[in-house]
Amino acid sequence: MFDKEYDVIVVGGGHAGAEAAAAAANLGSKTLLVTMNLQTIGQMSCNPAMGGIAKGQIVREIDALGGYSGIISDKSAIQFKMLNKSKGPAMWSPRTQNDRMRFAEEWRLALERTPNCDFYQEMVSGLIIEGDKVCGVTTSLGIEIRSKSVVLTNGTFLNGLIHIGERQLGGGRAGEKSATGITEQLVDLGFESGRMKTGTPPRVDGRSLDYSKMIVQPGDVIPEKFSYTDTKSLAHQRDCFMTHTSTLVHDLLREGFDRSPMFNGRIKSLGPRYCPSIEDKINRFADKDKHQLFVEPEGWDTVEVYVNGFSTSLPEDVQFKALRSVVGFENVKFFRPGYAIEYDYFPPTQLKHTLETKLVNNLYFAGQINGTTGYEEAASQGLMAGINAHQKVKENEPLILNRDEAYIGVLIDDLITKGTEEPYRMFTSRAEYRTLLRQDNADIRLTPLGHKIGLASDSRLKRMEEKLQKSDAFVNFFRETSVVPEDINPILESVNSTPVKQSHKMFKSFSRPNVTMDHMRKLKSVSEFIEAENIDREVMEQTEIQVKYAGYIAKEKNNADKLQRLENIKIPEGFDYRQLKSLSYEAREKLEAIRPVTISQASRISGVSPSDISVLLVFMGR
Amino acid sequence: MFDKEYDVIVVGGGHAGAEAAAAAANLGSKTLLVTMNLQTIGQMSCNPAMGGIAKGQIVREIDALGGYSGIISDKSAIQFKMLNKSKGPAMWSPRTQNDRMRFAEEWRLALERTPNCDFYQEMVSGLIIEGDKVCGVTTSLGIEIRSKSVVLTNGTFLNGLIHIGERQLGGGRAGEKSATGITEQLVDLGFESGRMKTGTPPRVDGRSLDYSKMIVQPGDVIPEKFSYTDTKSLAHQRDCFMTHTSTLVHDLLREGFDRSPMFNGRIKSLGPRYCPSIEDKINRFADKDKHQLFVEPEGWDTVEVYVNGFSTSLPEDVQFKALRSVVGFENVKFFRPGYAIEYDYFPPTQLKHTLETKLVNNLYFAGQINGTTGYEEAASQGLMAGINAHQKVKENEPLILNRDEAYIGVLIDDLITKGTEEPYRMFTSRAEYRTLLRQDNADIRLTPLGHKIGLASDSRLKRMEEKLQKSDAFVNFFRETSVVPEDINPILESVNSTPVKQSHKMFKSFSRPNVTMDHMRKLKSVSEFIEAENIDREVMEQTEIQVKYAGYIAKEKNNADKLQRLENIKIPEGFDYRQLKSLSYEAREKLEAIRPVTISQASRISGVSPSDISVLLVFMGR
Repeated sequence: MFDKEYDVIVVGGGHAGAEAAAAAANLGSKTLLVTMNLQTIGQMSCNPAMGGIAKGQIVREIDALGGYSGIISDKSAIQFKMLNKSKGPAMWSPRTQNDRMRFAEEWRLALERTPNCDFYQEMVSGLIIEGDKVCGVTTSLGIEIRSKSVVLTNGTFLNGLIHIGERQLGGGRAGEKSATGITEQLVDLGFESGRMKTGTPPRVDGRSLDYSKMIVQPGDVIPEKFSYTDTKSLAHQRDCFMTHTSTLVHDLLREGFDRSPMFNGRIKSLGPRYCPSIEDKINRFADKDKHQLFVEPEGWDTVEVYVNGFSTSLPEDVQFKALRSVVGFENVKFFRPGYAIEYDYFPPTQLKHTLETKLVNNLYFAGQINGTTGYEEAASQGLMAGINAHQKVKENEPLILNRDEAYIGVLIDDLITKGTEEPYRMFTSRAEYRTLLRQDNADIRLTPLGHKIGLASDSRLKRMEEKLQKSDAFVNFFRETSVVPEDINPILESVNSTPVKQSHKMFKSFSRPNVTMDHMRKLKSVSEFIEAENIDREVMEQTEIQVKYAGYIAKEKNNADKLQRLENIKIPEGFDYRQLKSLSYEAREKLEAIRPVTISQASRISGVSPSDISVLLVFMGR
Repeated sequence: MFDKEYDVIVVGGGHAGAEAAAAAANLGSKTLLVTMNLQTIGQMSCNPAMGGIAKGQIVREIDALGGYSGIISDKSAIQFKMLNKSKGPAMWSPRTQNDRMRFAEEWRLALERTPNCDFYQEMVSGLIIEGDKVCGVTTSLGIEIRSKSVVLTNGTFLNGLIHIGERQLGGGRAGEKSATGITEQLVDLGFESGRMKTGTPPRVDGRSLDYSKMIVQPGDVIPEKFSYTDTKSLAHQRDCFMTHTSTLVHDLLREGFDRSPMFNGRIKSLGPRYCPSIEDKINRFADKDKHQLFVEPEGWDTVEVYVNGFSTSLPEDVQFKALRSVVGFENVKFFRPGYAIEYDYFPPTQLKHTLETKLVNNLYFAGQINGTTGYEEAASQGLMAGINAHQKVKENEPLILNRDEAYIGVLIDDLITKGTEEPYRMFTSRAEYRTLLRQDNADIRLTPLGHKIGLASDSRLKRMEEKLQKSDAFVNFFRETSVVPEDINPILESVNSTPVKQSHKMFKSFSRPNVTMDHMRKLKSVSEFIEAENIDREVMEQTEIQVKYAGYIAKEKNNADKLQRLENIKIPEGFDYRQLKSLSYEAREKLEAIRPVTISQASRISGVSPSDISVLLVFMGR
């Protein structure tokens, strides 16, 4: 049936699988997406939102490289919000609320429009392995499909086990089957596997809620968007709402703790620390008398509502009784209860920076199978696995993003270097260079790389170059143009900043705290420049950041460059750490296991101390 | 969790379940729709089309009564065709091709907009039965939900078993779980259950087909629509295509016959006779050297294509090889193979005319669980079960449609009187009064009934009454208005009809073969009447049928009235047939089993002869 050999087979059609398939196919690989159900491609299994802190940056990075998540989020958005706008631009994080059905449909149609992407619906139950190389997959019907590489993006489906109270049922998501066979085969091959846990809150009937008792959470007045392409920003938006639990709600939940799989030992695996279940929250933070709940509509028209913050695997009657005591939820009707799900993952230290496994050549893992949590984390890994599967099959150089280039670089380096024992989520704090890794400059950072390998289009590159050229010119304008006290002092006074006595370069005043582009635009010469050079909102924002954060950016760039030197010191493949007697025992063991590629990566392994790094540096002759 | 008692619980969210829930809720019953997956409400499991011969009439009947299928089909249509337009109006049958995703979404949203309809996602695994009455359902998580009545619409999910070649896997549809528990419980209660089979063809990638080699099948130039409400007719449409199998294709298929579950005895149950698998067709019609395949797009934008006519459970490699030899399919890529599915059904002779079971009060069955096949058959049963569950709960009179009132009446009477051993599909030939049961007059036949029980809105009734009043007036106009030879003869001559010599009533000329409304409109007085009375296309069509088929309609009406007398002779409930020694043994057995309500129904039971009916009539004193 599958007479030809594919270049890349992607197993799974979630955020990781969809990005992997799109990337490989767009790069020119003959690609097959195999999924248990073609109707559930691009499903938002958990909350109907994309982006958020650090995650929004990842979506923009995916977009800058030529991935689809940003475009699809924009097309299916029902609300846009730039989070952390009151903080520095390194913290600004775009987030959309999305229409769940539209999101999935846009993904499906986007993939269908991707010429090299074929589809097949069936459960993949095994890999074809010849020697140390993967050569395809086998399905539950016994079909063999051959390929030069395979990307596994199984999400929560591998031996998925759903828990609600004392009940368990096999399944990859509520109402869907789990997938079997792959874990067992990989363990036989020598892979280490583990179990992780995640959970989801009840879905409820919006018609049964009293929104008048909740706090409205509207979108931004001037909504932006994720993609650097010409997707539209929203003309109108849907509101979210906020409410809170209470001590009464907590007491009602506690009544079910003896029947909780979390507390009676039935669930042993770890869940996402920063997205805990409600029972976890009231257990760990026993002194808090309320927790915030974020009430998210599931789409433009549907009445289905997602109760963010109320993830739980307590018995459904306990969930229900407790939620009924939340303000605004007095008459709530459930569409379905929350549940926890345990699934297999593979500690990601078994991967290379390309997301290829160390044990089996041309086999890539992306998404929750690597122990991560989050749509954005999954999508970005899918993108990189898809890219690198293609690059390897076509014998091109791999694409590896450095920690100072992208959150995606931080994510993958963290995963493969440090591993993770609990679902890994991205935070801005994980990045050493977060002033460099902003949401506004993802295109400047990454589009040239995406374009070089052939994924980001010429028009993307051109658009980015124009933006860069214009903002550079605008920054130069501020650096080179003087302003007289009569003109600038009213502005400075309006923000309680000391007036100046002499003419000076605009850059200097603009750098002062609280002076914004909106102030500077009031100066005639600035507004004339904007007019003449046709400067748009995006360029203005870029310019403002370049001016106001010039110092921070330069400093971080400098730090990054310094550390880059360590990054440039490669450790030979197959290096024998046993010859270095002065390494600590722990360091030697970890180094043997992780096999870092550079001194810099070695330095990030937990258990490898600065003195171990010195030993390595001395040995390498530095 | 479900503290209150529902009036009606509907199990399943397919065509039957969705109509049942909508009807009960719209009538005012507190209704709960329970389904294994809320994302798959209103799924078109098989081909992406609604209506067709006899089925299109059913959709219009559902619409006339106040059901949703017509509206949803209109909203999601991508093509409209009035089949059999070259035959008499009794044969005209509307059909739409539909966008599968839109269809499901419109159903979901329509139900969400139905105030009394609640939703819950879980597998129903049992019924709560107290005494001889159903009092609710239990779910796989052990939740009890109480209700005054239950409508089961389990489709192919009850112990569903999917066959492809020599493989079998449990499932209610490809990629979905099967449902367990209900059959076992019902059999314990004394129900008879059986197994049926149905099948579905491969879904393929439209990008891999060569449409230039196929015959285009466009929609109607002036597309109509299903609903009598103000849904829009299509401004543009998508084409379907036709191609054929060949002896080569048949030979390739035959190569797999030894591995076919149909022929090696693994599938024992019967499939739909008039929608057979391709292997069945080439086996039964061995002399035919080709079969027609109808290539249907699955939506406006998707590339997925449904290969109508190629339903099969042969091994997927055989399916593939054979389909590759079909003209236009030389490079076909599969999205998923065809398969057969076996599932439990309950012989429908165990039901009353209301679709309530005879054994358990307030328990209703609708759709494939009753041994039917087809979306329209399922939807109409769902509608009637939903209506009658409500009527019973509210202690209202049941709504039972007679055989001369609706195809739905024929369908249900056939099912409960004759039962069915193979999937039952509606045909025009099943109706004795098919000249009465036309697609154009379903509103006139049924909207008053739907309105009386409170399901069809006032505006529906008003619209129907206006149409009826206008067409009656227009018919009268033709009856009463004379035309002179100079005016009518050019028309008669244009259709090779003998010219007339004297003035006469227009009705007479209009009744002649080949004289159509389009001809009559050329007469000044007719066009003036149309103008003055604001006669629209629908009224014109109705008038034309009333004039041209007046004789047939009157004759059939007369026959129906005669038979209605038999219909009026009720057989007392619990009647003891053993006292009638002159009944044949077979008749007595069948009458005891079916327990017909009227002499007319008794006469339709197979095995009950006219002489048995005479015995009954004599006994009843006629």
